[in-house]
Amino acid sequence: MSSAPRVVQCTAVPSAYLQEAHDRGDVRLTVWTPREDEAHLTTAPRDWLLEHAPGASALLVVLQNRVDADVLDRAGDSLRVVSTMSVGYDHIDLDACKQRNVRVGYTPGVLNEAVADTAVLLALMGTRHALPASRLVTDGRWPKTPMRPLTLTGPSLEGKTIGFVGFGAIAQSTVRRLASFRPRRVVYAASKPKPFDVHSAAFAPLLDDVLGTYVRAHGRLPFDVENVQDVGQVAAEADVLIVLANYVPSTHHIVNADVLQRMKKTATIVNVARGPLVDTDALVDALHRDAIAGVALDVIEGEPQITPEHPLLAPALADKVVLLPHVGSATTEARQSMANYATLNVLAALGLRPGSEKDTFCAELDLSK
Amino acid sequence: MSSAPRVVQCTAVPSAYLQEAHDRGDVRLTVWTPREDEAHLTTAPRDWLLEHAPGASALLVVLQNRVDADVLDRAGDSLRVVSTMSVGYDHIDLDACKQRNVRVGYTPGVLNEAVADTAVLLALMGTRHALPASRLVTDGRWPKTPMRPLTLTGPSLEGKTIGFVGFGAIAQSTVRRLASFRPRRVVYAASKPKPFDVHSAAFAPLLDDVLGTYVRAHGRLPFDVENVQDVGQVAAEADVLIVLANYVPSTHHIVNADVLQRMKKTATIVNVARGPLVDTDALVDALHRDAIAGVALDVIEGEPQITPEHPLLAPALADKVVLLPHVGSATTEARQSMANYATLNVLAALGLRPGSEKDTFCAELDLSK
Repeated sequence: MSSAPRVVQCTAVPSAYLQEAHDRGDVRLTVWTPREDEAHLTTAPRDWLLEHAPGASALLVVLQNRVDADVLDRAGDSLRVVSTMSVGYDHIDLDACKQRNVRVGYTPGVLNEAVADTAVLLALMGTRHALPASRLVTDGRWPKTPMRPLTLTGPSLEGKTIGFVGFGAIAQSTVRRLASFRPRRVVYAASKPKPFDVHSAAFAPLLDDVLGTYVRAHGRLPFDVENVQDVGQVAAEADVLIVLANYVPSTHHIVNADVLQRMKKTATIVNVARGPLVDTDALVDALHRDAIAGVALDVIEGEPQITPEHPLLAPALADKVVLLPHVGSATTEARQSMANYATLNVLAALGLRPGSEKDTFCAELDLSK
Repeated sequence: MSSAPRVVQCTAVPSAYLQEAHDRGDVRLTVWTPREDEAHLTTAPRDWLLEHAPGASALLVVLQNRVDADVLDRAGDSLRVVSTMSVGYDHIDLDACKQRNVRVGYTPGVLNEAVADTAVLLALMGTRHALPASRLVTDGRWPKTPMRPLTLTGPSLEGKTIGFVGFGAIAQSTVRRLASFRPRRVVYAASKPKPFDVHSAAFAPLLDDVLGTYVRAHGRLPFDVENVQDVGQVAAEADVLIVLANYVPSTHHIVNADVLQRMKKTATIVNVARGPLVDTDALVDALHRDAIAGVALDVIEGEPQITPEHPLLAPALADKVVLLPHVGSATTEARQSMANYATLNVLAALGLRPGSEKDTFCAELDLSK
C-alpha cells in the first residue's frame, strides 16, 4: 500500500470516488482539513500545499489554490496531474505544467446550466427591485409605506431587448430560459464576428428539445437574434445587458465608461462571468449619475476582498445594486458534478478511473498549443 | 360642465384617460392627493372617500379601499360604477352593488404575466439562497467566509417536481416559464378535479407559441403534468410548491400543518396569491423544525401589518425566508395596463370610453349570479 500513488486534495469535495480508491488501497489520499484557526478558509493555504506536495502524483485544487512552478517543483517528478474543480484555470501555470509533462484536468460544461439559472435570477432581482422590496418588509417599514400603483415597479422582460457580451454556451443557455419571458430581441457581441445562424453548430446550446422543435417547425426562433459589431452597440440597445465573456487580457474592462455611457437609463447590467470584465469605478460612477437603472453582479473585481467600504456598497446605491458572492454555479447538482469530474480526472491520470475507461479524463486541457 | 358626471379617484394611477376626459369636460374628476401627514398612505383614507362620495357617478378604488353599503349610500343614486384597479374584489360588497344597480369593473388578466415572473423570481431566490448570499456580501463577511464546494448551494430545478396549489392562468403561465428550467414533472391540485388534457381549452394558458408548437409536434409537453387528488399529495411530491389558488372561504389555510407535514425537508414554498392561503403559525413551526427548506412569499397573512416582531422575521429563520411586500404584479407594464383598464371601465360605465365601443368595459364582474 505504501507504493500506491499519493493524491493531495486541497479541500473537501462532494464526491466519494477518491475516498473509495483510498479505501481500496489504490491511492493514498491526503485531504486538507481546516484547523480551528482556519475555519474561515475556502481551501488549503499555500503553506499546506507546499508542505504536502512532495512525492504527490496528483493535486486536486480549486480556483483559490495558485499552482505555479514552485508548487510543481515541490511535488517533483512523481506529479502526473493537476486537477482543478473549476472551469477556469487562470490559477494554474499551464506552461510550467507542460514543461514537466503534468496533465491538467478541469470541469467545463457541468456548471453551465447553474450559471444560466443565476443569470435569470439576477436579471429578475435587478429589474424587479427584489432587495429594496425585501428590506422594506424585513425592516418593518411595510405598514408605513404607501404601496401606490408605481411603487417598486420595474420593467417586464416581455417585448424587451436582451444584450449579451459574449455568446458562448452559458449565454445561449441563458437565452433558452429567457425565451419563456418573451423578449423581442437578443443582440450580442463576441470576440470575433459570429453572425447568427440558427442552423450552425455554434448555436447548438440554444436549441434544446423545445426551441429545437420550434426552429424545425418555423425555420427561426420566436425572437430576433443578431450579432452586432461591438459591445457599445449591444449596450445601446439592451434593456438587460448580460456579461458572459471569457476573461482574457483583451476583455479586461470590456464594459468600460464608454460602453456604460451608451446604455439606456432604464437598463440593468448582470455579470455572472468574471469581475474584471466590468470597470467597477466607471460602473459606480454611472450608478451615481443614474446613467443606468441598476446592476446585479455575481462577480466583482477584487473579490472576495469586498468590505463594507467598497464603493458598490455605498448607501446611496443600495436600492440599485445586487451583489452575490460568486455563487453562479452553486447548485448542489452542479457542484457534485464538478467534484465528480475533478476526482475522476485524478483517477484517470493514474489509470485508476472506475469502469472500463480507466485512463479517460472527463475533461482535460490541451497543453500542446 | 357642471352637469358632467363626477368621478372620485382614490389614488393617482398611471393612465391619462380620465384626466383627458376631465380636460374635455366629459367628466369632473376628483383625485385624492395625500396631505403631508398622509404621505405614508397607499390610497385615500375612508374619511376622504366618504366625504367626496356624495353625488359621484363613479368610484375608482384599489384593494385597500373598502367599498361597503355605507360608501355606496353616501354616493347615492348618481353612482353607476365602482371600478377597482385590482384583480381581487374582496373589498367590495357585491350584493350591495347589485341591489343599487351599481356595476363593478376590475382588471383581470393583465397582471398574469407579471405575477408569473414573480413566482419564478421567488422560486429562484428561495432555492438559491439569494438573500443570505447577498447579505454575506453587503455585511462585509465575504473576505472571511469559506466558500467551499457546498457553501450556499441549493437545488437545481432541472429534473425536479414543481407542485401547484391551484392551476389557473397564472399557474400555467408560471409553468411556461419554468419549462425552460427543465423540470421532470408538474403536479397540481385544484378545487374541483381537473384532469390534465393538453388539448383542453382549460390549459390554453400553458400553450404559447413555443410550447404550442412543441405539443403539435410531439403530442405532449416536454415534462409530465398530473392532476392529483389533494393538496397533501402535491405537497408530498413537490420540490418547489407554488401557491396560486383563489382565496375563498374553502381555501383559507389550505396549506396547513397537515400539508406542511407531508413536504420534503428539501422543499421550498412560494406564495404569490393571497397570504391567508397559508397557515402562518404552522409555517413558522415547520421552518423552525427544519421540516421544509424555506419559503418565499409575496403575500402574508395580516399584511401590511408585518412588524419586526413578526414570527417570520425571527433571526433564526432569516436564511430560510424571503418576504416581498405584495409586488407580484409590479411591472411597470402590468400596472399601466391595470390603470388603463380601471379608467376605461369608469368611462365605459358612463358611455364615454374613447373609440367606437363607448360603453364596453375592459372587464366587468357578473353580478347576476
